[in-house]
Amino acid sequence: MDQAPLPIRSERIVEHLAKLATFSSSPPPEVTRVLFSAPDLAAREWLQARFVEEGLTVRHDAVGNLFARWIGEDPELPAVATGSHIDAVPHSGRFDGTVGVLGALEAFRVLRESGLNPKRSLEIVVFTAEEPTRFGISCLGSRALTGKLAPQDLEVLRDEAGVSFDSLRVGAGLAHLPLDALVLSPRYAAFLELHIEQGPLLEREGAAIGAVEAIAAPAAYRVRWQGAAGHAGTMLMSDRRDALAGAAEGILAIERAAVEWGTIDTVATVGQIAVLPGALNAVAGSASFGIDLRDIDLKRREAVSIQIREALERIARRRSLELTWEVVYEDPPASCDPGLVAQILESADRLGFGAMRMISRAYHDSLFLALRCPIAMIFIPCRDGRSHCPEEYSSPSQIEAGVRVLADCLRVLAGYGKSPDPATATVLPGRVRPR
Amino acid sequence: MDQAPLPIRSERIVEHLAKLATFSSSPPPEVTRVLFSAPDLAAREWLQARFVEEGLTVRHDAVGNLFARWIGEDPELPAVATGSHIDAVPHSGRFDGTVGVLGALEAFRVLRESGLNPKRSLEIVVFTAEEPTRFGISCLGSRALTGKLAPQDLEVLRDEAGVSFDSLRVGAGLAHLPLDALVLSPRYAAFLELHIEQGPLLEREGAAIGAVEAIAAPAAYRVRWQGAAGHAGTMLMSDRRDALAGAAEGILAIERAAVEWGTIDTVATVGQIAVLPGALNAVAGSASFGIDLRDIDLKRREAVSIQIREALERIARRRSLELTWEVVYEDPPASCDPGLVAQILESADRLGFGAMRMISRAYHDSLFLALRCPIAMIFIPCRDGRSHCPEEYSSPSQIEAGVRVLADCLRVLAGYGKSPDPATATVLPGRVRPR
Repeated sequence: MDQAPLPIRSERIVEHLAKLATFSSSPPPEVTRVLFSAPDLAAREWLQARFVEEGLTVRHDAVGNLFARWIGEDPELPAVATGSHIDAVPHSGRFDGTVGVLGALEAFRVLRESGLNPKRSLEIVVFTAEEPTRFGISCLGSRALTGKLAPQDLEVLRDEAGVSFDSLRVGAGLAHLPLDALVLSPRYAAFLELHIEQGPLLEREGAAIGAVEAIAAPAAYRVRWQGAAGHAGTMLMSDRRDALAGAAEGILAIERAAVEWGTIDTVATVGQIAVLPGALNAVAGSASFGIDLRDIDLKRREAVSIQIREALERIARRRSLELTWEVVYEDPPASCDPGLVAQILESADRLGFGAMRMISRAYHDSLFLALRCPIAMIFIPCRDGRSHCPEEYSSPSQIEAGVRVLADCLRVLAGYGKSPDPATATVLPGRVRPR
Repeated sequence: MDQAPLPIRSERIVEHLAKLATFSSSPPPEVTRVLFSAPDLAAREWLQARFVEEGLTVRHDAVGNLFARWIGEDPELPAVATGSHIDAVPHSGRFDGTVGVLGALEAFRVLRESGLNPKRSLEIVVFTAEEPTRFGISCLGSRALTGKLAPQDLEVLRDEAGVSFDSLRVGAGLAHLPLDALVLSPRYAAFLELHIEQGPLLEREGAAIGAVEAIAAPAAYRVRWQGAAGHAGTMLMSDRRDALAGAAEGILAIERAAVEWGTIDTVATVGQIAVLPGALNAVAGSASFGIDLRDIDLKRREAVSIQIREALERIARRRSLELTWEVVYEDPPASCDPGLVAQILESADRLGFGAMRMISRAYHDSLFLALRCPIAMIFIPCRDGRSHCPEEYSSPSQIEAGVRVLADCLRVLAGYGKSPDPATATVLPGRVRPR
């Protein structure tokens, strides 16, 4: 293997991103691709055809994680994996997750064209439902794969319309795969995820590449307010136990808690709310919403969570509402493998891209992969740091830089090309690094 | 015609109420019957069969108002009408509106069995969509019938899913009826509506019958908050223009304005809210809700409306959100015809039921009929004043009392039986009484 620049073609990736964006439940420029919806199933089929076309060996697991393997010279060695997700929150954009999947496809293609004969197998993973849209649980696929969602948890999952996860996976043709054989085995030698930053720092610093050292710790709670429904005309203001008014006060308390008890690294969000009966002329009998709370410091996140819960309980008491507080998940932050981080910086440097160390404020499948193998993430800039909206954008050259660095790292980690620096060579085989 | 008690059978009404409640999109004891949904269409068909069975002449108009006429001895005289609605807000009960329709059917039945030969025609009207569930406009049918919704207003109506009112009415088999020939003509000699109180006063006072003298003035507004959507992990709290947080603050300001600027007769409600993108992990880019504001005093309602709007504009400015404020309707209050009110009190007295004069805090089709003819309403108690919820309940004997009074009034107004008191005889023919 020589170290000549790989013939990465950003226009191929851009074309693929545009095509993938057409699998959507909302009109362009918006993208909406919800787990096991018709557009999601069609996108999976299209993607699988691209992998097969590239000569990769494709398989699914029971929750719909999709694996495309380039079998290495020594198939017994733990593989080196990369990948991300293709589901998209409602009314969002075309780059979140997809850049890591289609970028990996382009990296594989040029590595194959360049004649690489990898010692370890290389694998692209497309994780099921990184976004929590349908079941209120983010990273469903990577959680299941790393033992953080047991088969019995999956069996009881239902969406807001009451449709079970199990019936959906059966509808997606996964019935023959047992849910109890999910956990990733053998572990990967390493997992690298290419992703848009979804924040403003790389753009602000003028850096092409972010080498992620840690992923912020996310928690999610489900809160339900129970009051008394009634007629909007006849129920006097003083007689009301209005669940939506209570929830509204709760939303403001959550916002305040993040600002007052957290730091700049603390974010708390209520982004969806459901009201019953939900009519213009009916006082709300119940309201429920999810809280998304994140911090890079676990202790501080826990402190803010306690403040929020106490504030909501005070509101519920004062308004004679019943409050239900449910922990959906409280995940610990993840550290990236220092050796892999060093490899990213080294590859970026060799290829002439400015790079910086950073943390990931957003939540990724890598967080869960870190429970099973060494991980790291490669970030590229996105305009104004915007994501989860139609304005989300990374330029072709920004994407190309990320794919070049990814391909270079994969070439090294697969066991060919330049050997890893002795100081970082210990990254293989995989180390479990939860925290 | 003798004045013997009519053989009203409450068990027949109760049975019909139970049957009608089975036409529902939500499981019992809840009732959900939305305009032109499958349960609504099935309920209309069932009801029409009951009218035909009773020998009534049935017709529809272009928006789906259903008329069942008992043709009088002099068909040229303006008819005496009664009726209400059968649509039900989501997750509500079985008595709202339906008591006035099925009670009228029972009244007609016993009047026919008793041998009454009315001089004027008697008519039951079942109004389309008294509830604003689907199109955000209450009393759609009676508004259209009284010229408060022009054909061009109806043609542009769309529900939240983008389905047009026109396509729905075509689907309901009403395509052949022209929208421009809607206005009620000839006018009715009188319109009487039997309805559950939907408030606690009759129960509290131990009265069986309420003779409604005026209907409170309702207004509805649609408010949209536009901010910036973003990723819940990466968008810093200080960078946010969170539309849901703004809407939450707005909901509390609306509640406060009704309490601080209104009296006990002022009610303001936000009972539904829609958020985009509407995901656990996405900062809300936009949020919209309806405001239902009512008062028996028009000037005071207008003052509260101004307070609300100014408060929302302050919130939007402070949070850098764009606010859109749209008047859906601002209806004037309606007075009932004093002669008809006196007739209700007289019939109740003669039948031995305790009765009281009262106002209607709730909003009814009678409000619009008042623009075209003399109206009055007969209220019966409902438990704890609850309505628009599954707990809504009136007992068989409470319903029977209302139907007895209704039947007696219809007998008088139709031109037979005991003549109206000279002081009230001027109620016929119809007087237009908007205010």
